[in-house]
Amino acid sequence: LTSKLPSVGTTIFTTMSALAAEKGAINLSQGFPDFKPDARLLEAASNALLNGSNQYSPMTGLLDLREAIAQLIHRHYQRTVDPLDDITVTSGASEAIFDAIAALVQVGDEVILFDPAYDLYEPAITLAGGVCRRAVLTAPDFHPDWQAVGELITDKTRMVLINTPHNPTGSCWRNEDLESLWQIIKDHNIMVLSDEVYEFIHFIESAVSVHKHEGLRQRSLVVSSFGKSFHLTGWKVGYVVAPKALSTELRKVHQYVTFCTTTPLQKALSDYLIQAPEACDALAAFYRDKRDLLRNGLKDSRFTLLPCEGTYFQLLDYSAISDEDDVTFCKRLIDEVGVAAIPISVFYQTPPVGQRLIRLCFAKEDITLKDATERLSHI
Amino acid sequence: LTSKLPSVGTTIFTTMSALAAEKGAINLSQGFPDFKPDARLLEAASNALLNGSNQYSPMTGLLDLREAIAQLIHRHYQRTVDPLDDITVTSGASEAIFDAIAALVQVGDEVILFDPAYDLYEPAITLAGGVCRRAVLTAPDFHPDWQAVGELITDKTRMVLINTPHNPTGSCWRNEDLESLWQIIKDHNIMVLSDEVYEFIHFIESAVSVHKHEGLRQRSLVVSSFGKSFHLTGWKVGYVVAPKALSTELRKVHQYVTFCTTTPLQKALSDYLIQAPEACDALAAFYRDKRDLLRNGLKDSRFTLLPCEGTYFQLLDYSAISDEDDVTFCKRLIDEVGVAAIPISVFYQTPPVGQRLIRLCFAKEDITLKDATERLSHI
Ligand SMILES: CSCCC(=O)C(=O)O
Ligand SMILES: CSCCC(=O)C(=O)O
Repeated sequence: LTSKLPSVGTTIFTTMSALAAEKGAINLSQGFPDFKPDARLLEAASNALLNGSNQYSPMTGLLDLREAIAQLIHRHYQRTVDPLDDITVTSGASEAIFDAIAALVQVGDEVILFDPAYDLYEPAITLAGGVCRRAVLTAPDFHPDWQAVGELITDKTRMVLINTPHNPTGSCWRNEDLESLWQIIKDHNIMVLSDEVYEFIHFIESAVSVHKHEGLRQRSLVVSSFGKSFHLTGWKVGYVVAPKALSTELRKVHQYVTFCTTTPLQKALSDYLIQAPEACDALAAFYRDKRDLLRNGLKDSRFTLLPCEGTYFQLLDYSAISDEDDVTFCKRLIDEVGVAAIPISVFYQTPPVGQRLIRLCFAKEDITLKDATERLSHI
Repeated sequence: LTSKLPSVGTTIFTTMSALAAEKGAINLSQGFPDFKPDARLLEAASNALLNGSNQYSPMTGLLDLREAIAQLIHRHYQRTVDPLDDITVTSGASEAIFDAIAALVQVGDEVILFDPAYDLYEPAITLAGGVCRRAVLTAPDFHPDWQAVGELITDKTRMVLINTPHNPTGSCWRNEDLESLWQIIKDHNIMVLSDEVYEFIHFIESAVSVHKHEGLRQRSLVVSSFGKSFHLTGWKVGYVVAPKALSTELRKVHQYVTFCTTTPLQKALSDYLIQAPEACDALAAFYRDKRDLLRNGLKDSRFTLLPCEGTYFQLLDYSAISDEDDVTFCKRLIDEVGVAAIPISVFYQTPPVGQRLIRLCFAKEDITLKDATERLSHI
């Protein structure tokens, strides 16, 4: 048996969450809330189950949900999308990204992504026979160097895979970034896969979405996640917005990967969005308070806080504490302090020598965050 | 934009279900029950949602559920499997099959499958860069010709993709079939992907599972579907049983395709299986009655009934009624009789010339089946 993914092991999220559970540490590693979603949404799900939405949905998603998504996009981005042709519901944002790559990247195609990048992009591209070209993002602000990105373009470049707000660094793109990207690709046959699962969680006025860029959005697949926006990462419902030609190819793969997404949870989300169209309006403020609680709690610690413009992740520099590598440091943090974090080196193709960064998730009850920062102030 | 799957359109299930809805026909096309799952299971799901199982499960599935699955396998097949290493929960059986192929079929590898075959196998193999070799199954009993299968083996054969009980034909393999397969592959480096989603729905004593074959099961991934076994095709929860080495490769892909499967529904299934370990014992008898109701209802029609040993699908020969091709005939059936069926030619690489077969799903209320057979007796 020769592995097709010889260098892939278990994801860092599985490893760290398992270690945290085993050692009884506070788990700020894998990104998920430790609080409940809106009770109205759970009620809607319970009703959908008991009232009989338990068989296949349409392959592209329940029409009511796709219409509610179109409303949500209009509310937040003033963009009009066609629920029939342009929106596809998927079994989580991961499936959306995997399907898009499987459908659109051909053997030998080059895909530009950033370094660091979320861990699923590269294996998905490898399985499709594509080649990854990474543009480096540099601490502390991790903004792209657009000249360097431009230099990566070749005849074989077919896709740029972007992610804003950015996991794991918490940086957000500005309009200039989208415009620079557009200038680089506009005269080439290059599409964009935009992972915007933290779209509603940003703390700067100037954060942008591909939905707002006239040129880019006609070539882009934009991926969103109800798990992130509604605090239910275990529901595994996401969606992709893309022009018809791209949606058509995506759906060819989606229909053979999961065919459709859990019907009762789709029904619940659609009922809830109709009832509470404003559901995502206050998400940024909600998470800003949590970010600030975490940052304040670490003020007197020996960690250095990096900027956090979006996502529910905060990077910490621990170089004043230790010069261990980040995986070793994270394991010691679990053992000695009782807090689980994510080492950042795992998201890199080429981790910068001497960089000492870990990631904390602040999608947690205030009491959890207080307890964790208290502990982290003692190392 | 060059499609990677140029010959793939929308699946026949989507097309026929949409037509049935549009024309108000009784939908016996796409396979799903029109009745409710066990109320205890819905109650368990509602409780799981309201009591807070809404975040990521472990990537391989909730341990409680994997233990319950191991019990189920032991109950039905007297096979002992390790819930930690050998069982992976997936977002439906489709994802399981897609992942297995993506993880294990390399560019240029040959995969033997049967003709006709379920529609997702071939595109999944094509996306992985594999080559399909089809062994013909011949009406009316659709049993494999093992000599012909043996002749398809080459140096490049890496997998045989089997499916029993078989969709769309309703045929079931005997022990001799498994033994013939074993003799053909045992001295080669060939694995087996066994789609057994209708495992509990068979009407002959001698139906078998790879779980029962000592040799084969050490080289096989066996795929099951809670959707089929518990009447909830919209939940999208399935699982794969495979030895550790194969499970390890499968999980490398699964963790990037959906990462994990809807947590509250996993919790519900696990609670229910603990409460009702006998849940699948009576499934075959339940569906035998429905099959017989359908068959009796068509006795005086002009259709000829083919044998139906398993699955919830019945094949009908309509050559006494029309010599239209099956797609045309199915469309006319919707318009003129008000019943939607599935044309069988779409499952073939090479549809037999002059074969006139359609498939009816009998996972329906008795009243639905009576109404449908009444209508079908008037053409
Ligand atoms: C799919 S588990 C990982 C969750 C997540 O997005 C993260 O922690 O970065
Ligand atoms: C995934 S929709 C098709 C359902 C099914 O298995 C069938 O009708 O054959």
